[in-house]
Amino acid sequence: MIRMSSSFVRTLREDPSDAEVASHKLLVRAGYIRRSAPGVYTWLPLGLKVMRKVEQIVREEQDAIGAQELLFSALQPREPYEATGRWEEYGPTLFRLQDRKGADYLLAPTHEEMFALAVKDLFSSYKDLPVMLYQVQHKYRDEARPRAGLLRVREFVMKDAYSFDVDDAGLDASYDRQRQAYQRTFSRLGLPVVICQADAGAMGGSRSEEFLHPTPVGEDTFVVTDGGYAANVEAVTTVAPAPLSAEEIAALPAAHVEETPGASTIAALTDFSNATYPGGGYVAEDGSWTRYEMLKHLVYLLTYPDGSTEPLVIALPGDREIDEKRLEVAVAPAVAAPFTEEDFARHPVLAKGYIGPAGLGLESASKIRYVVDPRVSEGTRWVAGAGEAGKHVYDLVFGRDFTADGMIEAAEVRDGDPAPDGSGPLRLTRGMEMGHIFQLGRKYAEALDVKVLDVNGKAVTVTMGSYGIGVTRAVAAIAELHHDDKGLAWPRSVAPMDVHVLATGKDEAIFAKAAELAEQLEAAGYDVLYDDRPKVSPGVKFKDAELIGIPTTVVVGRGLAEGIVEVRDRVAGSVQEVAPEAVVGTVRALADA
Amino acid sequence: MIRMSSSFVRTLREDPSDAEVASHKLLVRAGYIRRSAPGVYTWLPLGLKVMRKVEQIVREEQDAIGAQELLFSALQPREPYEATGRWEEYGPTLFRLQDRKGADYLLAPTHEEMFALAVKDLFSSYKDLPVMLYQVQHKYRDEARPRAGLLRVREFVMKDAYSFDVDDAGLDASYDRQRQAYQRTFSRLGLPVVICQADAGAMGGSRSEEFLHPTPVGEDTFVVTDGGYAANVEAVTTVAPAPLSAEEIAALPAAHVEETPGASTIAALTDFSNATYPGGGYVAEDGSWTRYEMLKHLVYLLTYPDGSTEPLVIALPGDREIDEKRLEVAVAPAVAAPFTEEDFARHPVLAKGYIGPAGLGLESASKIRYVVDPRVSEGTRWVAGAGEAGKHVYDLVFGRDFTADGMIEAAEVRDGDPAPDGSGPLRLTRGMEMGHIFQLGRKYAEALDVKVLDVNGKAVTVTMGSYGIGVTRAVAAIAELHHDDKGLAWPRSVAPMDVHVLATGKDEAIFAKAAELAEQLEAAGYDVLYDDRPKVSPGVKFKDAELIGIPTTVVVGRGLAEGIVEVRDRVAGSVQEVAPEAVVGTVRALADA
Repeated sequence: MIRMSSSFVRTLREDPSDAEVASHKLLVRAGYIRRSAPGVYTWLPLGLKVMRKVEQIVREEQDAIGAQELLFSALQPREPYEATGRWEEYGPTLFRLQDRKGADYLLAPTHEEMFALAVKDLFSSYKDLPVMLYQVQHKYRDEARPRAGLLRVREFVMKDAYSFDVDDAGLDASYDRQRQAYQRTFSRLGLPVVICQADAGAMGGSRSEEFLHPTPVGEDTFVVTDGGYAANVEAVTTVAPAPLSAEEIAALPAAHVEETPGASTIAALTDFSNATYPGGGYVAEDGSWTRYEMLKHLVYLLTYPDGSTEPLVIALPGDREIDEKRLEVAVAPAVAAPFTEEDFARHPVLAKGYIGPAGLGLESASKIRYVVDPRVSEGTRWVAGAGEAGKHVYDLVFGRDFTADGMIEAAEVRDGDPAPDGSGPLRLTRGMEMGHIFQLGRKYAEALDVKVLDVNGKAVTVTMGSYGIGVTRAVAAIAELHHDDKGLAWPRSVAPMDVHVLATGKDEAIFAKAAELAEQLEAAGYDVLYDDRPKVSPGVKFKDAELIGIPTTVVVGRGLAEGIVEVRDRVAGSVQEVAPEAVVGTVRALADA
Repeated sequence: MIRMSSSFVRTLREDPSDAEVASHKLLVRAGYIRRSAPGVYTWLPLGLKVMRKVEQIVREEQDAIGAQELLFSALQPREPYEATGRWEEYGPTLFRLQDRKGADYLLAPTHEEMFALAVKDLFSSYKDLPVMLYQVQHKYRDEARPRAGLLRVREFVMKDAYSFDVDDAGLDASYDRQRQAYQRTFSRLGLPVVICQADAGAMGGSRSEEFLHPTPVGEDTFVVTDGGYAANVEAVTTVAPAPLSAEEIAALPAAHVEETPGASTIAALTDFSNATYPGGGYVAEDGSWTRYEMLKHLVYLLTYPDGSTEPLVIALPGDREIDEKRLEVAVAPAVAAPFTEEDFARHPVLAKGYIGPAGLGLESASKIRYVVDPRVSEGTRWVAGAGEAGKHVYDLVFGRDFTADGMIEAAEVRDGDPAPDGSGPLRLTRGMEMGHIFQLGRKYAEALDVKVLDVNGKAVTVTMGSYGIGVTRAVAAIAELHHDDKGLAWPRSVAPMDVHVLATGKDEAIFAKAAELAEQLEAAGYDVLYDDRPKVSPGVKFKDAELIGIPTTVVVGRGLAEGIVEVRDRVAGSVQEVAPEAVVGTVRALADA
């Protein structure tokens, strides 16, 4: 039992000045957390209880699928992270330090390397596998802009698990076990999640899914359909128009170059076309020209990890913009930067405002890489720059008049776009990433030479899966979802305490009865927060109880004289008046409901 | 249940090459821990279970005295530690780092500052106090020479608790509560401890006690007597001879200078005296001269925190050496270094080999500080240098012929020295510091301005106590105490699992029965490690079981055909042959014994 009079719990009436989101405001005001540095928090007693409950649910579901818990230090030497390239790749997000001898260390953002090395240390045969390992541990990332309380922090508790299998089928099975454990975990936490296909680009097309909790305060954008499709925006594939047959293509008019003076923008070209060739549009039912068929060409300079560079021309329908995140994923490991004036000056074949496919492509004299949006498919008809100022080509048909070096998924995804699986129009949604499972494959095992002998005695590299849940972020997400204008309203599975007993009044009999009920409830197996503060008004006690958000409140007050005690349910807002003898039973009925 | 066939447990037959102590060797060999960097360890599944059990016992005893758990980040900003001076004082032992903006951070060695600031943040009145707070958390100290496995590390788990009281009486009460909690904690951990008076010098004489576990591998030396006295060597006070009366002093011969050519060492002076004045000694019953009465003078250069320096001459009985650690405590915050030849050259009054009290002391012309060992008490008679080469003064009586600027407790403590409380001769013992409780007083609260309003509405600075237990070190100490030449032998309170079931043989019936018994034991509430490895010999399984050290082993093997299963007790070494139906009952009897 915790007695408010001697507890390290203090509530605030005012929101903290730096708080933007409800979870941050309420967790601070209700005395759950305090900030000790930007993005670094202290867990006060009530907050720690919630975090431990979340942690325990996560742990139980990991144990249930046979994952084994161990614990690595947050402080790790540079070498393993150097071997996998992460020492460099993490850039300023990695907390780096040196010991007294000048040796390099880091505060680990995750522990792929250390888990892989542990398996290399202990295991040597295919018979040792599969194995699933995890830890619940404090992680460090030096975020540029910590914000929103626990939602974007620099220190956080995370469960990170890793599977080790000898082959791809084993990895698939391990992945599925974790996927199911995650569904059970979030269900027990009271957190609805959507399982989204995530970008798997860098991982070579293997499975990767994010567990996104839909919430307006989320930092991630994802798409869903009524038909059940869900994906990270980076993972959405574009639905291309059905390809035309050879006969259909043959029936299209031949391409022809036209003077388009001053039409160096998509908008100007559309206006020019409507003014000059009214009714000739390719896609609108009424024959008007739209920005869609004005093929837009954007030029980027790609820089590869080895420092080499090359230009990249992307062609896409004129009404679409590039999505920077999708582009980033599509060109990885290269990095794309928009062409500068100087870059254009070095490549005169790229006539700004009038770029078209002519003269581009790796097969051409220019050797400039030319890629197209998936909507630029076989038989589609476009208006494109002619490669010289003031001229465009009309009736330019892809596959007949021009080709490309490949396709690229870099155009923005819009509300209403068709889902790749035909399940209906996409809806753009905001969400918070609660978990991520993905098939790492052999990347880390190769870098660290983690091999086992297979059934034939041959050394084979193991294949890994990686599975993370943000424990502290889950606390914030639950607080974000489960609150009202009066305060927090915890689901029972993660509430810091089960019952909040309030003694409201000055009468000694009230305090005696409240203490007795608190004892009875403890004896019945409930964790009790007992507000025994002698000189605090009933109003303040009620406000504090609503702010703190324990699921059941028992109020012992003036009604006691008539043999009445109130039992309140924080979430339902219900109030039952019962005899003191009935309190334990009433509380149990609410808890078991 | 953990099945060995799929568990992340592997034993080693060889001791790790860097292991010096049994706990290190066995914890590594039995698959409990692995080193990831010097002084940084990974907790494998069995090791983590032991650590969590130790942690839980520590936690329960803290909760039982009303201490409230919270959790600070290991990563903390410089400012609070700057305010108390610890940012500097810790020197190279502190892990320091900078974030991406260049702000200074540290990995906290302990959290006095943060706890004090939390109390300052939440509390404001004497009515809020007392409060006792704690955390169980990963701490970092950049030890110069990590060694002995978990005994001297750079990352470790520690329970650190702090009490906050409005007055000294409150602090005493809080201190006593923790003292009792510590006694219960170590008793439950199966770790005998001696409560030693610790140096309280820097803290201004308030209470300070260490819980030392006597063990030959301990790094600390402490003293005990049969009469119950126990103290850290730094805290031992010297028993001085009873002072002589004025009459007794008057009866002593007058001091006289003698030629002592070449007697520039204590040994030479003793030999010279015995040869020249046989039978004239002051302390030996037979009148021989001993090294004791040859007053030894040692000279140090003290350097104070502000950079200033001064010489210090220490006089002590000639048969004693200086104890560096006692000297360190005695002169703190100054640091003492032995006088160099250059230092002597600068102070001609200090005639090397013939130094004596003449011409020394703050009142003298030399103004050189002169302090004496407590044995140099009123009326004691000595032979000392005359301050010029080749001469000594005999019959030199303290209090009559010379005085000092003060006393100093810096001489070595020896086996057989009398205890200050008269409880008998001291025995020097080696031990390991398991816990430390001390009264911090107002040092941190003053530095961080932690005040509350007292009953009269006046702001008063709170007084703090600090209480630490090394959780990871306790694991090592338990392993060190509870092992034999075959391996570990855990006390039941902290064993990683309760029962180890071995299936020894090739018969399928053996495996079926072993699996069934393992299930039954789990159902009866025991954590079971089941060695189900199909192609591992009984010998290897027995060796592994003895190495891993789970308290009870159930062996299902050849005897099964005759209806016999073995139940072994790891500590007692006993073996009972029972029917399979009797296994659960037999295990329970052992566990409850």
